[in-house]
Amino acid sequence: MDFHNKKLVIGLIGAGRIGNVHYKNLRRMSDVQLKTICDIRFDDSWKEKYPDVSNFTTNYQEVLSDPNIKAVLICVPTDLHPQMIKDAALAGKDIFCEKPVGFNNKDIIDAFKTVTDQAVKFQVGFNRRFDKSFMRIVDCRNEGKIGRPQILKITSRDPEPPSYDYVAHSGGIFMDMTIHDFDMARFISGNEVKSVFVSGNILIDDKISKYNDIDTAIINLKFSNGMLGVIDNSRQAVYGYDQRIELFGSNGVALAGNVPESELTYASSNGTTRDNPEYFFLQRYNEAYFNELRSFFGAVQGKHKVVCTFTDGIKAIRLAEAAKKSYNTGTTVEVRDIYSY
Amino acid sequence: MDFHNKKLVIGLIGAGRIGNVHYKNLRRMSDVQLKTICDIRFDDSWKEKYPDVSNFTTNYQEVLSDPNIKAVLICVPTDLHPQMIKDAALAGKDIFCEKPVGFNNKDIIDAFKTVTDQAVKFQVGFNRRFDKSFMRIVDCRNEGKIGRPQILKITSRDPEPPSYDYVAHSGGIFMDMTIHDFDMARFISGNEVKSVFVSGNILIDDKISKYNDIDTAIINLKFSNGMLGVIDNSRQAVYGYDQRIELFGSNGVALAGNVPESELTYASSNGTTRDNPEYFFLQRYNEAYFNELRSFFGAVQGKHKVVCTFTDGIKAIRLAEAAKKSYNTGTTVEVRDIYSY
Amino acid sequence: MDFHNKKLVIGLIGAGRIGNVHYKNLRRMSDVQLKTICDIRFDDSWKEKYPDVSNFTTNYQEVLSDPNIKAVLICVPTDLHPQMIKDAALAGKDIFCEKPVGFNNKDIIDAFKTVTDQAVKFQVGFNRRFDKSFMRIVDCRNEGKIGRPQILKITSRDPEPPSYDYVAHSGGIFMDMTIHDFDMARFISGNEVKSVFVSGNILIDDKISKYNDIDTAIINLKFSNGMLGVIDNSRQAVYGYDQRIELFGSNGVALAGNVPESELTYASSNGTTRDNPEYFFLQRYNEAYFNELRSFFGAVQGKHKVVCTFTDGIKAIRLAEAAKKSYNTGTTVEVRDIYSY
Amino acid sequence: MDFHNKKLVIGLIGAGRIGNVHYKNLRRMSDVQLKTICDIRFDDSWKEKYPDVSNFTTNYQEVLSDPNIKAVLICVPTDLHPQMIKDAALAGKDIFCEKPVGFNNKDIIDAFKTVTDQAVKFQVGFNRRFDKSFMRIVDCRNEGKIGRPQILKITSRDPEPPSYDYVAHSGGIFMDMTIHDFDMARFISGNEVKSVFVSGNILIDDKISKYNDIDTAIINLKFSNGMLGVIDNSRQAVYGYDQRIELFGSNGVALAGNVPESELTYASSNGTTRDNPEYFFLQRYNEAYFNELRSFFGAVQGKHKVVCTFTDGIKAIRLAEAAKKSYNTGTTVEVRDIYSY
Repeated sequence: MDFHNKKLVIGLIGAGRIGNVHYKNLRRMSDVQLKTICDIRFDDSWKEKYPDVSNFTTNYQEVLSDPNIKAVLICVPTDLHPQMIKDAALAGKDIFCEKPVGFNNKDIIDAFKTVTDQAVKFQVGFNRRFDKSFMRIVDCRNEGKIGRPQILKITSRDPEPPSYDYVAHSGGIFMDMTIHDFDMARFISGNEVKSVFVSGNILIDDKISKYNDIDTAIINLKFSNGMLGVIDNSRQAVYGYDQRIELFGSNGVALAGNVPESELTYASSNGTTRDNPEYFFLQRYNEAYFNELRSFFGAVQGKHKVVCTFTDGIKAIRLAEAAKKSYNTGTTVEVRDIYSY
Repeated sequence: MDFHNKKLVIGLIGAGRIGNVHYKNLRRMSDVQLKTICDIRFDDSWKEKYPDVSNFTTNYQEVLSDPNIKAVLICVPTDLHPQMIKDAALAGKDIFCEKPVGFNNKDIIDAFKTVTDQAVKFQVGFNRRFDKSFMRIVDCRNEGKIGRPQILKITSRDPEPPSYDYVAHSGGIFMDMTIHDFDMARFISGNEVKSVFVSGNILIDDKISKYNDIDTAIINLKFSNGMLGVIDNSRQAVYGYDQRIELFGSNGVALAGNVPESELTYASSNGTTRDNPEYFFLQRYNEAYFNELRSFFGAVQGKHKVVCTFTDGIKAIRLAEAAKKSYNTGTTVEVRDIYSY
Repeated sequence: MDFHNKKLVIGLIGAGRIGNVHYKNLRRMSDVQLKTICDIRFDDSWKEKYPDVSNFTTNYQEVLSDPNIKAVLICVPTDLHPQMIKDAALAGKDIFCEKPVGFNNKDIIDAFKTVTDQAVKFQVGFNRRFDKSFMRIVDCRNEGKIGRPQILKITSRDPEPPSYDYVAHSGGIFMDMTIHDFDMARFISGNEVKSVFVSGNILIDDKISKYNDIDTAIINLKFSNGMLGVIDNSRQAVYGYDQRIELFGSNGVALAGNVPESELTYASSNGTTRDNPEYFFLQRYNEAYFNELRSFFGAVQGKHKVVCTFTDGIKAIRLAEAAKKSYNTGTTVEVRDIYSY
Repeated sequence: MDFHNKKLVIGLIGAGRIGNVHYKNLRRMSDVQLKTICDIRFDDSWKEKYPDVSNFTTNYQEVLSDPNIKAVLICVPTDLHPQMIKDAALAGKDIFCEKPVGFNNKDIIDAFKTVTDQAVKFQVGFNRRFDKSFMRIVDCRNEGKIGRPQILKITSRDPEPPSYDYVAHSGGIFMDMTIHDFDMARFISGNEVKSVFVSGNILIDDKISKYNDIDTAIINLKFSNGMLGVIDNSRQAVYGYDQRIELFGSNGVALAGNVPESELTYASSNGTTRDNPEYFFLQRYNEAYFNELRSFFGAVQGKHKVVCTFTDGIKAIRLAEAAKKSYNTGTTVEVRDIYSY
């Protein structure tokens, strides 16, 4: 195999928190070359910070016009996603884009059409699909170990609320946080969500009401195959990032638990104590982030299909919109009533 | 202490499955004397089966007219509960009655009034309140370890569906099965449920539709203090009786897990296996049944208040009725809109 | 079945701590009648304490001469065991006797011969053989799930040291505490121990040296089939009674863990905490004590053989003696070099 | 911080299995430059396999004579260790060397003296010291959570036996496999081992007797502070790499369990199953290998002392020699009787 002869040359657009997560994982791949980083905050100190990167730019068109670059990772704020996706697709680049694919429906559909027309590969950054334990639930389902799926339960709680600033631009809890759970609901069940019913409240921090948002929610799901689902969300679990999924069916149940910080157990007269779950997504999903890039590059190299498509990105947004509408109206919302594409 | 001088003398009305559970636990109590068993199915062979019981009868009035009997356990079919409660109260007996306290609202309220007027002690048989692990969640809440409660989750799945015959007279899944979970919702949270929203379906056995019942449900709860809750029910968990409760709040989370059949772990090249949860309620809640009687007798002897009152019995029924209405209408039902007493 | 027609009539000799454990379990059996209690401390208040017992005596010969009594439970101090066993056997009673069967070898052999000659049934009180989790290890072995057994590990730690008074008459740690583990070594492995090597020390309480005893030990075992074993003992585990067994072989490993006080898990910013193991033997082995009596009565009624024989009782004593010798000499002791019977 | 200005330049001598483990971890470090790889098997294809490495050589002296290289990783067969260590020390390089530091005592002492004389930094590759869970046991001890340590238990079982070829040159089970456990015994306890007693046998594969080796062992330890310890070893645990450590003392017990392959639990009518432990050392200790290099580089950069010294390497060898002697003689061996340095 001449795998190493032809390194896959890529560009990174946006080197903020998540961009740097990807950068670190790229360093573990000897068959991929990150040639160019584009970020409007670039200054000369970055040359030392990213010693194996040849080019830096503040203009993403420079990345897109580089004929050696085959694929780009788009890690900029959400509102910039659709335009950049469109431009990258027109430049013939394969695209990995962080979630959500956008805020504005018209722009998203526009970008989607361009990607489809240009026939470039496109993967959206739902990293949890690449978590080892969650993938094992899907394995169980595919192997018939669940039988007929009947109940899906997703627990998804952050260790601490984001800043008010972040909340202001996040699109709300359903678009920012639950969107991952909506994608998981589809991925784990292998089914489409038909309708959504939401109970929500502000139980952690009243100030969040200023941003027209909530911090605690329970979301009921009905699926096209008749099965039922429920997601519970909280912005603050003081014991760490709580990320559990359970798929129950006629042949058995598969549960993915949290990953503890270590395998230590300590017992004294005060009880038997274990470590809490890994604190947040950078810890818990570090290998999932690595795996999602490997999967993207595998698709770029034609080894397999894209696992997590533009359509997946859009469907999760539709579910977030349905959830918002359900919360606002207090009624069940049929997903087909959210404008379709 | 002259504890043993004065044995508490009681009667048992109804010696079916649950009556026999209580009988076995009574044999473990040296300070209680089961003097009389009343059951319409009595025949002479019972004298050998219950060797330490002096009297048998097929007429419950004989039990009630015995001046030596201080308290009765009512373990007959639900439709007989209200009349028997009323008669027992009028006879001045303290009463332990299995759940639900009745089917017909008028009769229930009648019985409740008599119990109140006669000032006899009354406990309803919500055995799960006396489960060691569930009690520990309440301890955590009372000790401030949960902080402000935010989310309550109850998983309640039977290992196998009841017979069609049973289903036909059960009052439906909410009245028969979820009623325990509704009582748990109030007990664990220490709060009243304000509204209920139900998603349900038939996913296990289509024949149950003949009985106008379902076998799988997710029930959303809103509580008077703003917290949210969710119950999931299934009539068939092939791995055994699945009974888990989780109370999440600002200071932490308490989870009561299932009790495995043993503490064995076996690891081979096929994986690492543990025993399933104890198979059904007779196994899982055996000690809880013992504890609930101890608690009732403690209340009869004036040592403490009744833990699980007539009002608790009525409130759980109201929640079951609200759930049924929500399932039928597809909307959120305010519990206050169910006729109150 | 005329099971209930003929209650099994028994007598209890010695109503101290362990005698009362058996008494409580006897109350749960409707097919056994405890007719007589013999204890030198008897006074009239006992009639109320044991309301279902007809006779009391301070002379055990009264029990033995009662033709209605088929079997006796001997729960007196160890030094009295051999004579009482002998007398009971001569009186034709089936015998359950607490461990160890005696201190003095000649007396033990004498008693053993009488039991054999009289052909009465005899069970020694190694209660751990009847623990659900430990029995499951044996099931695994019998089902071939272990394959060729290679390593046996027994962890056996008490929550707190006994009183000095107890230590003075206990026969030392190996005879008093490890004796259970030696029986487990034989029971779990299904093999005889060939040789013993002991490391021991006083690490908890120096005063124990006055009694020529130790409080911490690691005991190596070699078995007749070549497999290896190790027991570790401590007189003080502050987190509760630590009773774990592990059998490892060519096909897999079976581990019996501790039984937690409840199935609660509590997670906060300070970690994730579970309950400690059940505190001591009265809690942990309560059901095992019940099961061992059921097994004895089953053997008395001819339903099956005695599970835990006089020979088992003697072999465990031989291993305790070998351990003592190994500790004193610092060398490996062959069990065959301990005088045999 | 000018951390990135001055990359630490290093050389790797020996690019076999363990050398490649280190190579992959080096790629995750942006502050370290692997300039040269030395391996006698080098051919041109390696340039593509290691694209970020500038130089390749088959002569390790080339690495040592490069003034830009500050430190070397020695990952060659054990018999070559002492000479290479000596040469590297004389060249003024800081040294990381895989375990064991050598086979021949005179050569080891010679190398040790040179390292000491040249005052270069030296770390031996006891990777387990850098396992997250094991480090947490030491934390517990240092924080007083164990109190007075009394019992140390180490379970160490490989998933499958090495090849006969490997066995022939391994130095025997104690030198090859138990040596890690001996280092752990010292690291976890913070104490020196005074004496060793070994039980061992061939229970897996009789052919190993040709190599004068065994495959199953239980090793008793006595420590300088009076505490007791036990290691159990097997060359074949069919359920995966079994690596558990337990430190028990007057205030509590700390147990480091195995790391499961994922956090999935699957329950069906056949039981409740979890994943097995990670299969072998490359999986289980991958992060430990990363951490040990970070620790070495931290010591090289003067940030802290070397965690795992030449003396540690020698002491573990002495314990392996004591174990071999104990196995051969069947007696307890005092470690001081192994020739000291």
